[in-house]
Amino acid sequence: NFSQSKTKENLMRAFAGESQARNRYTIAAEKAEKSGMYTVADIFLYTADQERAHAERFYELLKEMSGQTIQIDGTYPVDQQETLAELLRAAEHNEKEEYEDVYKNFGDTAKEEGFLEVASAFYQIAQIEHIHEIRFARLAEMLENNTYYASEEVSTWMCTNCGYIHEGKQAPKVCPVCRHEQGYFLPDE
Amino acid sequence: NFSQSKTKENLMRAFAGESQARNRYTIAAEKAEKSGMYTVADIFLYTADQERAHAERFYELLKEMSGQTIQIDGTYPVDQQETLAELLRAAEHNEKEEYEDVYKNFGDTAKEEGFLEVASAFYQIAQIEHIHEIRFARLAEMLENNTYYASEEVSTWMCTNCGYIHEGKQAPKVCPVCRHEQGYFLPDE
Ligand code: FEO
Ligand code: FEO
Repeated sequence: NFSQSKTKENLMRAFAGESQARNRYTIAAEKAEKSGMYTVADIFLYTADQERAHAERFYELLKEMSGQTIQIDGTYPVDQQETLAELLRAAEHNEKEEYEDVYKNFGDTAKEEGFLEVASAFYQIAQIEHIHEIRFARLAEMLENNTYYASEEVSTWMCTNCGYIHEGKQAPKVCPVCRHEQGYFLPDE
Repeated sequence: NFSQSKTKENLMRAFAGESQARNRYTIAAEKAEKSGMYTVADIFLYTADQERAHAERFYELLKEMSGQTIQIDGTYPVDQQETLAELLRAAEHNEKEEYEDVYKNFGDTAKEEGFLEVASAFYQIAQIEHIHEIRFARLAEMLENNTYYASEEVSTWMCTNCGYIHEGKQAPKVCPVCRHEQGYFLPDE
């Protein structure tokens, strides 16, 4: 039984570890760049991208083996055949938790412990997570209601590839200028 | 005392969480791209990059508050004023641990539990970590011995910006063609 196995736990730890390695190497690349060692920065950057690939492989295995639902580090349970809308709802859920619960608490604790700069970082970033939450929720809703490419409130659409502006309540299936597909169209504001 | 505070632990948890969010959103962007929703992919990608920034802020705070040494998730202790060589040694240390210890054990456990595909992923990725380890070690050694831009064994250098080839045992301080600094030069093989 995979769900109670040590292996499942190890895959989750490996995903967490690779994710942190990716970020540490990205940060190291910036440091190398600042000290003018551009070729060292390149090595850190492509290695960071390899850690992304490692994390991704472990993530896929977790989903593949679980078949049903998994829960990585407080994420909303997702299943193997998750749709984009479900991915967005999972992301929304995590952002909401960070905003409403986790970072608020972390900030309060830092304040109580007298680490005011840290408290302020937690509070400020919590606000940004709220914006992430709202953005993901709005997107998920549009995908669920099939209004991402069709909306009563939109009158013009822009092809983000070539800039063509289309008038109408629906994005065209294909851009008449650059022939790129509907996926490139955004409501024009 | 920061080193025994709950806040230090929270910063480490926040770094881990943001790192995983960055990877989850990068994976989601690939999924969006595969389903032809390029503008949704864009949103996931720039949000992933914002999570990188969040992780980085927490990482900086950890280093700033610790002053002395910190240990994030099994990394080699690094201090606030770490040099590039120290960063590389820390990276080498983590890769070595993954290769020699962590992923070997994870692979063995997966085999014992009968999850052969997972075991094989752990073993294969362990081998790649060994390559990472060796690459980081070689770089660190060159920085420590000041042989990154000067070596008895190198006779030509390439400017990675413009391709100019310089002959000699040392990389030039500045590329005579594109005026880019020494940091762009690599030994030419
Ligand atoms: Fe996937 O750690 Fe080099
Ligand atoms: Fe939107 O998590 Fe930093």
